Amino acid sequence: MAFNKRVKIKTILDENPVGTEITLMGWVRTKRSNKNVSFIALNDGSTITNYQIVADPNVISEDILRKCTTGSCLKVTGKVVESMGAGQASELNAISVEVLGEADPEKYPLQPKKHSLEFLRDIAHLRMRTNTFGAVFRVRHALAFAVNKYFNDKGFFYIHTPIITASDAEGAGETFKVTTLDLKNPPKNESGDIDYRKDFFEREANLTVSGQLEGELAAMALSEIYTFGPTFRAENSNTTRHLAEFWMIEPEMAFYDAEDNADLAEDFLKYLIQYALDNCQDDLRFLESRLLDEEKSKPADQRSEMGLLDKLKFVVDNEFVRISYTEAIDILKRSKPNQKKKFQYLIDDWGADLQSEHERYLVEKHFKKPVILTDYPKEIKSFYMRQNEDGKTVAAMDILFPGIGEIIGGSQREERLDVLLQRMEEMNIPTEEMWWFLDTRRFGATPHAGFGLGFERMVQFVTGMGNIRDVIAFPRTPGNAEF
Amino acid sequence: MAFNKRVKIKTILDENPVGTEITLMGWVRTKRSNKNVSFIALNDGSTITNYQIVADPNVISEDILRKCTTGSCLKVTGKVVESMGAGQASELNAISVEVLGEADPEKYPLQPKKHSLEFLRDIAHLRMRTNTFGAVFRVRHALAFAVNKYFNDKGFFYIHTPIITASDAEGAGETFKVTTLDLKNPPKNESGDIDYRKDFFEREANLTVSGQLEGELAAMALSEIYTFGPTFRAENSNTTRHLAEFWMIEPEMAFYDAEDNADLAEDFLKYLIQYALDNCQDDLRFLESRLLDEEKSKPADQRSEMGLLDKLKFVVDNEFVRISYTEAIDILKRSKPNQKKKFQYLIDDWGADLQSEHERYLVEKHFKKPVILTDYPKEIKSFYMRQNEDGKTVAAMDILFPGIGEIIGGSQREERLDVLLQRMEEMNIPTEEMWWFLDTRRFGATPHAGFGLGFERMVQFVTGMGNIRDVIAFPRTPGNAEF
Repeated sequence: MAFNKRVKIKTILDENPVGTEITLMGWVRTKRSNKNVSFIALNDGSTITNYQIVADPNVISEDILRKCTTGSCLKVTGKVVESMGAGQASELNAISVEVLGEADPEKYPLQPKKHSLEFLRDIAHLRMRTNTFGAVFRVRHALAFAVNKYFNDKGFFYIHTPIITASDAEGAGETFKVTTLDLKNPPKNESGDIDYRKDFFEREANLTVSGQLEGELAAMALSEIYTFGPTFRAENSNTTRHLAEFWMIEPEMAFYDAEDNADLAEDFLKYLIQYALDNCQDDLRFLESRLLDEEKSKPADQRSEMGLLDKLKFVVDNEFVRISYTEAIDILKRSKPNQKKKFQYLIDDWGADLQSEHERYLVEKHFKKPVILTDYPKEIKSFYMRQNEDGKTVAAMDILFPGIGEIIGGSQREERLDVLLQRMEEMNIPTEEMWWFLDTRRFGATPHAGFGLGFERMVQFVTGMGNIRDVIAFPRTPGNAEF
Repeated sequence: MAFNKRVKIKTILDENPVGTEITLMGWVRTKRSNKNVSFIALNDGSTITNYQIVADPNVISEDILRKCTTGSCLKVTGKVVESMGAGQASELNAISVEVLGEADPEKYPLQPKKHSLEFLRDIAHLRMRTNTFGAVFRVRHALAFAVNKYFNDKGFFYIHTPIITASDAEGAGETFKVTTLDLKNPPKNESGDIDYRKDFFEREANLTVSGQLEGELAAMALSEIYTFGPTFRAENSNTTRHLAEFWMIEPEMAFYDAEDNADLAEDFLKYLIQYALDNCQDDLRFLESRLLDEEKSKPADQRSEMGLLDKLKFVVDNEFVRISYTEAIDILKRSKPNQKKKFQYLIDDWGADLQSEHERYLVEKHFKKPVILTDYPKEIKSFYMRQNEDGKTVAAMDILFPGIGEIIGGSQREERLDVLLQRMEEMNIPTEEMWWFLDTRRFGATPHAGFGLGFERMVQFVTGMGNIRDVIAFPRTPGNAEF
């Protein structure tokens, strides 16, 4: 008595099976009726396109039709016929309609009118039923699949690095503690400190900020690996760019130097975008028009110069600009906003950390292209990045995207044990608890490199969504762990 | 100055480019020398097969060759020539050898001899460099890719459900707390309890035990979705079957009933196994011989009746047995071990929870096939499972595999709001904080179903590894969060 004898709307659109009798299941988006007929727009999530059900009140009872309100769930059997209406090849002449689940119009929050993104964020459990979020999450799926396909086709191996970790040596940010201790009466040792030996892992544990260090271990055996998993920051940032829980992709490759690393990163990003262009045309076209609409309320100079699809094609078709940090500082020093003191943080000297305003100037005003910035001062980068011969810079790379800022951060890794140990000492990184990381430099070390791509930022770029909370199903931010 | 101008060993084996000059990079597995020549077996992780480097001491200096010890990392340029040796089509006549990283034979733990799995677990940062773990993690990758490919090809959408959650209503097990509070001096409210309003999420939060409930929300919009992410149990189980952190795949489908659910699950499992058979022949053949070796030390009646590959093919080629819990109880009651009181838990009455020994009896002794057990008593299953018309059972399904036990648990979900609310009340599940879950039954409800596959158990089944800690890169268990 299998129930699932339906045809997906996407399949109907692809195959246009005029003349056949089929069963559809999905949710009512809108219904309009006149004396002679009701038109129901049905959506089943397989595509952004609604499919039109034509219901003759002589065939489908008035009682049933009354219940076919926005949000209700239907099982409709009927005959596919050519459509007279514009914008659709066919429609379904209903033979029978079963209301699987009603949606009281007085209570269902998603009535057919414009809802703000803020409102929809509060009902994230329902927002995927809208055109915008249906499109966003189908594109997100396509990008996630493209990530796996890209690396699989290249012979990389997917590694699940640990989520709970006792190593917080990377210093990438504030961490969440993971514990099973009774917070009200935690065990303490003689000196009055929490006795973590009594905790589940018999030591302090937290949520990972990156799988890189463990990824390196795997790369030193399998050559080319990637991670794709959740990472965490316990930073109190209530911005449109930050989440407490987000997904990262971190490839790590033995035998790659900084140039190999940048080549891979550029190729990878272009592949992802091209994949979305090839597989998500309908959704992207809808998201383009949504963005255009949204930007109408902005001052002209803050609107995008290109439509979403053109912007995506532009990134795929053009080489990214590659410049060193040193060159970038020169450009920024001489730039108008620096000269006219429009930057909040003025660029005076080599060594300054670049702020979002500087990155945006380089990408959006100066080059108008994605930029790969390389060879940063070692003082503003992590201990594990490979020191260049100048003794001042490291083989770091940040990739900056228009509208998004940093989308990738990476580096060639320091494989020379003595150089690494010295740098760790300078930066007060405890070497004893990192014995396993250092072992990869003790035994069979090799030049290697890797990078991290923030998956949500990539989804934002491809979908044109301005707030990172709108590209992950159930965002976690300070004060928010609903659903 | 890109460094990565190498050819992977897998590519050489596939293309056999005899006569060309190429560069290889990888790690030395073994070296044997005589007066006239050294043979170096190099592995780069792309395949289980080592590639033979032939080094003439008149070409490659003695000084270099001395450093080519087990574990050292080499860059070798040479000419591919047909091989005289057995088991290899070609080998590399070295023109130059560069030692990228040495591995002191006095200190490198992975010398060419047999190491126990226990020993290798302690050096999990290096164990992927062994044949066994290289094979396991290549197979794990292939299975992970197959998961994504299967669902993508079927039009399912990958949803990243939250890792940190404030909802622990599912009651699937003990959870880890996630907090940024100062454990030494946590804020307290007037009644002396921890004041979670001061915590990062302004409420109690923990690590997810399942993405199912959030998956249902997405399925009620996109029809067919799946999750593939880490889940957590804070249970103090030091067994070969349990991890504190493991990966689960949870598809959730609108418009599926219990039978559709079982059909999908069986098809999915067979697809994964067939994918491994098609894509991991070399690794599986090695793992089969490893298992055979391991079983030699066991008493004859504990050895597998089939080799690993035969066992995998057998599962793909045969229909799973589908029986109800009630039928299973009848079989177990009449079984020899029950009659002879050999079961630790004797089966007397309908309603008993099945233990591992019973599941193993059904799968390994009685049917000798995977078994789909359905329609369990509602008392021993979760609140969200759909009640059958008998008023006693729910539309649950467990899939039991030989040697592994439960590999999938799933059910048709209770979509009837009144029935669900009553069951939640009976089981003391708070309904207020589950408002969002209940909304899917209030608005556009439909029959739907889903299941969860424990990914590590699947990897165990396909690789034949007996301990779950040997199929995840860096296992988390009580007292263990190393690496």
